[in-house]
Amino acid sequence: MRDRKSWNVNASTYAKNTFNPIRNIVENMQIVPNPEKPMIALSIGDPTVFGNLVPSETITEAVVTAIRSGKYNGYGPSTGFADARQAVAKYCSVPDVTELEAKDIILCSGCSCALDLCITALCCPGQNILVPRPGFPLYRTLAEGLSIKTKYYNLLPEKNWEVDLEMLEALIDEETSAIVVNNPSNPCGSVFSKEHIKAILEVASRNKVPVIADEIYDHFVFSGEEYHPMASLTQEVPVLSCGGLTKRYLIPGWRMGWIAIYDRNDILSKEVRNGLNSLSQRIIGSNTLVQGALPAILGETPKEFFVDTIKQIEDNANLCFSQIDSIPGLRPIMPQGAMYMMVGIEMDGFPDFVNDLEFVEKMISEESVFCLPGKCFDYPNYMRIVLTVPEKQIREACERIAGFCTRHYQPVKNGEHSLNG
Amino acid sequence: MRDRKSWNVNASTYAKNTFNPIRNIVENMQIVPNPEKPMIALSIGDPTVFGNLVPSETITEAVVTAIRSGKYNGYGPSTGFADARQAVAKYCSVPDVTELEAKDIILCSGCSCALDLCITALCCPGQNILVPRPGFPLYRTLAEGLSIKTKYYNLLPEKNWEVDLEMLEALIDEETSAIVVNNPSNPCGSVFSKEHIKAILEVASRNKVPVIADEIYDHFVFSGEEYHPMASLTQEVPVLSCGGLTKRYLIPGWRMGWIAIYDRNDILSKEVRNGLNSLSQRIIGSNTLVQGALPAILGETPKEFFVDTIKQIEDNANLCFSQIDSIPGLRPIMPQGAMYMMVGIEMDGFPDFVNDLEFVEKMISEESVFCLPGKCFDYPNYMRIVLTVPEKQIREACERIAGFCTRHYQPVKNGEHSLNG
Ligand SMILES: Cc1ncc(COP(=O)(O)O)c(C=O)c1O
Ligand SMILES: Cc1ncc(COP(=O)(O)O)c(C=O)c1O
Repeated sequence: MRDRKSWNVNASTYAKNTFNPIRNIVENMQIVPNPEKPMIALSIGDPTVFGNLVPSETITEAVVTAIRSGKYNGYGPSTGFADARQAVAKYCSVPDVTELEAKDIILCSGCSCALDLCITALCCPGQNILVPRPGFPLYRTLAEGLSIKTKYYNLLPEKNWEVDLEMLEALIDEETSAIVVNNPSNPCGSVFSKEHIKAILEVASRNKVPVIADEIYDHFVFSGEEYHPMASLTQEVPVLSCGGLTKRYLIPGWRMGWIAIYDRNDILSKEVRNGLNSLSQRIIGSNTLVQGALPAILGETPKEFFVDTIKQIEDNANLCFSQIDSIPGLRPIMPQGAMYMMVGIEMDGFPDFVNDLEFVEKMISEESVFCLPGKCFDYPNYMRIVLTVPEKQIREACERIAGFCTRHYQPVKNGEHSLNG
Repeated sequence: MRDRKSWNVNASTYAKNTFNPIRNIVENMQIVPNPEKPMIALSIGDPTVFGNLVPSETITEAVVTAIRSGKYNGYGPSTGFADARQAVAKYCSVPDVTELEAKDIILCSGCSCALDLCITALCCPGQNILVPRPGFPLYRTLAEGLSIKTKYYNLLPEKNWEVDLEMLEALIDEETSAIVVNNPSNPCGSVFSKEHIKAILEVASRNKVPVIADEIYDHFVFSGEEYHPMASLTQEVPVLSCGGLTKRYLIPGWRMGWIAIYDRNDILSKEVRNGLNSLSQRIIGSNTLVQGALPAILGETPKEFFVDTIKQIEDNANLCFSQIDSIPGLRPIMPQGAMYMMVGIEMDGFPDFVNDLEFVEKMISEESVFCLPGKCFDYPNYMRIVLTVPEKQIREACERIAGFCTRHYQPVKNGEHSLNG
């Protein structure tokens, strides 16, 4: 019994500290398109919204089969059905290098949930994780809610967004509980070489820090590029790889993600595996219908489906790059994979705007073209373009961006540009 | 950079403190059935495992339609699609009493996730929530991971498992951030009367404590009983009702749950609604295919489907009660709804066994009948029987239980039994 006269119900600090920077920024932006021009949203990281990219029929019919079988209505184990986990284990194994078993896989409600489990299983309040800048803001959202700190290591635009390795190593301290590596990258579209991944792993190994590999864009690389799962390049460093069907299979709404535990030296068996299993019980796994379809989805989706998807995006990347590269004041950086391109904005050349946010806002109000400002990824003086938009709209958007920049650009006299990085 | 010679990767305290008591108990139990008798599991709270209870075709075909429409592959908002939320708002509204809108609903990955969001949005580490004993152990699992304390208020078997109201009120202190009320109840199968719910709400109101109503067994009541949503009986107390498709629609694996925010006096608008929205972004919502089907599932499932399901369970409850009531040493308590029956064990009459756990273990080894021990629900000297098992197996199980008890029961001389409660 207590003595209270009035209602005063507060949210927990956990809830208050959990916030999504993109949402915060976008909600406070001036988004008023030019009524004379239809809006082109190059901002939405959902490949399915434009209708040009649709999942393979193999995938959708696999779920129909799972439903009609009547076998997937009941509870699965909180880490997922054995068959489904086995199928993911096979998918994530690198033959002769890292062979996984069902017990190494935890199915989750999307890659977001996989990242949530990994971060919360490894880190205590007050400890820190290292995350990329520019980078996907969810890492920070997940960590800060639980009072886990995030420290940023830079990606270097002049080196195709490779990690600043010296900085990475300098950031590691006694309280560093994981390095988050995102390859291929959102927002950069970069794909790391074998050598570069090895160099990152050497830093992890020297300092005995486990890696959380955000590999949701696995195999999502353009022609001539190669994708290397981080875990395939280390004998020593324990790697929790977070992946899922979201991007490559074009079904983000289905919420099928996973953690693949690569741990050849049994470093994680002592506590972390159990920790992940325990945490998975909080929400008891992901949708069983999709689990039931998982073996067919991973085993039977035709190769051409992936080839077609990537071709569309690569064509858009080439188109976008060549168009934007000739626009005064903009400096696009060609991606090697994923679905995004970062474009540097020479802010000195646009004295009309104080920063990338205002640049982007004005581009909406004059041209009805919406790109996310670099600020969303903690990276000023850039904007991110999504490459899953149909070619016709990309082309039109590039023309409008060119018009906008030509109108506002004023070459800097002494030739000194303050382009970040 | 840091100086570490060896790998030492620990799990976080959050992960270590998150554990599921049922799992812990069951994993450490001696479960060795009698090889001469086929196992009958009266332990599994999944209504779908025996094949006698299957979802309505309306439900499964609604999902097939959603898939084939191609409209539900992309991301939904983290709180769910507006149409789906609107359908739940309608389902959860009590006409003329509490009308909800889409904004009052947050879709979640099962009711477990709904409970997780409510508890973590309302409570800080060090604060406490009041939970029922006997009760569903997930409340404690969710709270203790985040160092939120749980305090138990008793349910009284002699009063059909009504809440001990004096105890409830006495437990409330300055740090109490919510009262969790589960009606209809797992494990008791009890259904509270209107008057009793009002009495609980008066305690909440006097002490200004919000209620988390676990109403996953909504409308799941036997003939002659009435189900009252908590929120329909208060003008004042803010109620977060957690529900979902899991039980009533017989599809636990699909992971569709929700929070319905009943808050007539806008007490939760200041912070808690935002908090719930923020936390929902950690895993970005529930499966969109099921969301797409939700309006049809809630609007078109034929009434007979529910009537049939409940009839089977009620028949089983009657059968079980009459059989077990005549078994020496056992004292079943007739449920009014949900899918469970609690059975008191007069431990004094079974000197062969030290506690309910051993009683249950021996019943498995001699009779291959598996019931969960009361210990799983923090309630010794009881066992829980699941009523969704096909009648034939229930009948057989009761016979074997009778044989077991008759063999082991030794009437207590002085007539004093130490039956808990
Ligand atoms: C780098 C990165 N990681 C994780 C995610 C989240 O994936 P999911 O939708 O499977 O939760 C995204 C989604 O945009 C992403 O870009
Ligand atoms: C009382 C109670 N609440 C919540 C749940 C969890 O429901 P869901 O499977 O939708 O997460 C259960 C499941 O058994 C339950 O019995």
